[in-house]
Amino acid sequence: MLGLLSNTIEMIKPLDEGAIAEARSRQDLLTKPQGSLGRLEELSIQLAGVQGKPIPQVRHKAVITMVGDHGVVAEGVSAYPREVTAQMVYNFLSGGAGINVLAHQVGARVVVVDMGVAVELEPSSRLMSRKVALGTQNMCLCPAMTVEQAVTAIESGIEVVGAEVAKGLDIVGTGDMGIGNTTASSAICAAMTGKAAAEVVGRGTGIDDKQLEHKVDVVSRALALNHPDPRQPLDVLAKVGGFEIGGLVGVMLAAAAYRVPVVIDGFISGAAALIAIALAPRLRHFLIAAHVSAEAGHRLLLRHLGLKPLLDLDMRLGEGTGAVLGIFLAEAAAKILAEMSTFAEAGVSERSKLGD
Amino acid sequence: MLGLLSNTIEMIKPLDEGAIAEARSRQDLLTKPQGSLGRLEELSIQLAGVQGKPIPQVRHKAVITMVGDHGVVAEGVSAYPREVTAQMVYNFLSGGAGINVLAHQVGARVVVVDMGVAVELEPSSRLMSRKVALGTQNMCLCPAMTVEQAVTAIESGIEVVGAEVAKGLDIVGTGDMGIGNTTASSAICAAMTGKAAAEVVGRGTGIDDKQLEHKVDVVSRALALNHPDPRQPLDVLAKVGGFEIGGLVGVMLAAAAYRVPVVIDGFISGAAALIAIALAPRLRHFLIAAHVSAEAGHRLLLRHLGLKPLLDLDMRLGEGTGAVLGIFLAEAAAKILAEMSTFAEAGVSERSKLGD
Repeated sequence: MLGLLSNTIEMIKPLDEGAIAEARSRQDLLTKPQGSLGRLEELSIQLAGVQGKPIPQVRHKAVITMVGDHGVVAEGVSAYPREVTAQMVYNFLSGGAGINVLAHQVGARVVVVDMGVAVELEPSSRLMSRKVALGTQNMCLCPAMTVEQAVTAIESGIEVVGAEVAKGLDIVGTGDMGIGNTTASSAICAAMTGKAAAEVVGRGTGIDDKQLEHKVDVVSRALALNHPDPRQPLDVLAKVGGFEIGGLVGVMLAAAAYRVPVVIDGFISGAAALIAIALAPRLRHFLIAAHVSAEAGHRLLLRHLGLKPLLDLDMRLGEGTGAVLGIFLAEAAAKILAEMSTFAEAGVSERSKLGD
Repeated sequence: MLGLLSNTIEMIKPLDEGAIAEARSRQDLLTKPQGSLGRLEELSIQLAGVQGKPIPQVRHKAVITMVGDHGVVAEGVSAYPREVTAQMVYNFLSGGAGINVLAHQVGARVVVVDMGVAVELEPSSRLMSRKVALGTQNMCLCPAMTVEQAVTAIESGIEVVGAEVAKGLDIVGTGDMGIGNTTASSAICAAMTGKAAAEVVGRGTGIDDKQLEHKVDVVSRALALNHPDPRQPLDVLAKVGGFEIGGLVGVMLAAAAYRVPVVIDGFISGAAALIAIALAPRLRHFLIAAHVSAEAGHRLLLRHLGLKPLLDLDMRLGEGTGAVLGIFLAEAAAKILAEMSTFAEAGVSERSKLGD
């Protein structure tokens, strides 16, 4: 690995222990029983460590929704036709998709990136075009992409984050769209965790039992044909991944390099995190798992990464919809630390000395 | 029961099945796989049924934080001195408490009600004074209050909601403050569910093992002395309850009567819900359980009520902090239904006919 990717990985430093200690001390001065805001308190302390600020800020928010098509749809793995990928891009651009509604509510801008939709899309000022190719190859017949394409996809994600940081970015969410991408993510998950296909394959947009069995077979065949090597994450991404997944790997790495906390969405973002953490183990501490999705392999994947999801709402839409809900909670956590009064400021008595 | 309380209970009608059916149909037309927004979809359908609108609205939001003192603190059940109840009221009024920060983030107004703080508070235009008495009696020595006081507390809660509805109210959250109120709530929970004190008593603001054992003993003694009758919820509220808990019973009943969805907070709100649902079983369908708190008896209590919490973030602050996070999710659910495009509007293909 040379150039932008390896430089970005080198830029990822440990969390700022000084900021963490200061944030933790401040939490204990605020007018509430110590620890009584639970995971919001933990989250505020993580944000402090990532941003390197005792009082972290979550004002400038973005969700980056990466889109790509998958050759493996030729095997009949999805309940929806391939055309839906491009159609949903236009839906994102016109503001009618789930991610638009929820991102607007939390005040996050939506950055839509064409990483490899199978058709040429109409140009739009609201669409970033970083198309690596017109969809991946069918991983049941050959590798999904070349290693060069995998690196290009990751580096595109890095560049997208660079542009967002220039606009102001305190936190970033990851999102995805791509008919067939739960199949690719299942293959990545199986390859990286060593689990069998049957343990990680789920129903995606909604397939029945027979189609599920077929999807397990498709993933098994792709793995048997390609032999992705879990010690070489770029090999896994190239052989059974996707362009939008590669883009998300880049988003995560670059965000950590810039000390921007990353709220990861569901199963597809999780698959990208498996690759990204394998490339840069320090990244793990910069990630916030927004939710555990209804997709079968996601809980297992998060456990493998040691990430504890904030939400468990049976969501499985993708697009970054879970991530923006996580951004809301991160903002809540940061505001608690920044805006609550201390016992001294409010003139509130602390715990009784005759206490525990 | 006569007058305002019984009239309010009579006003509670079933959910609007027509609105529920229309909301459910619309969810299935939106540009996402059916059911893929999980509990947000269910929540939007519940909101439709409560409000009686196929597309529910969550714009005018309030959290009602009811405050009261407890005679049982004389038994040494809390890690904090009794003075903290009044001090926290001033903290609410000056905007420095956890509830202020989180309510501001979600755009909910905070309505602070003195239901029975043990001292006279300085008047403030931002404080509603509905003081029933200067704190309850010590339930280890006698009933916490008379049945007349219990009714007064509930009716005060009803009137508070009436005033808020007049200002515009699409959703309401419940909150509480009162040193000693996890002890009263534990006693209510034990009385209403038939569980032993040891199963429902928790650490409140943070007591150690020895104090926990003492708190179990205090609750057991209060129950043995007063014999609250679970078939008579007003008897339970009077004997082992609290003024702020009674006020919250009224808030829940009145909100349901006005068809306003109620997002309930943690253990204290849960204890109020036990009483309120016993008075008006239809109320259950109007309630949204925001979260399961870290307080020991809360999970058991929610299971008893058949309510599934939205969040599980180890929070145990009270004040309505969990409720306002739940209000955020309810607003998200409503916006999804109102603002997402349908497949037809967006020109997105529906599921393949050759599918499942």
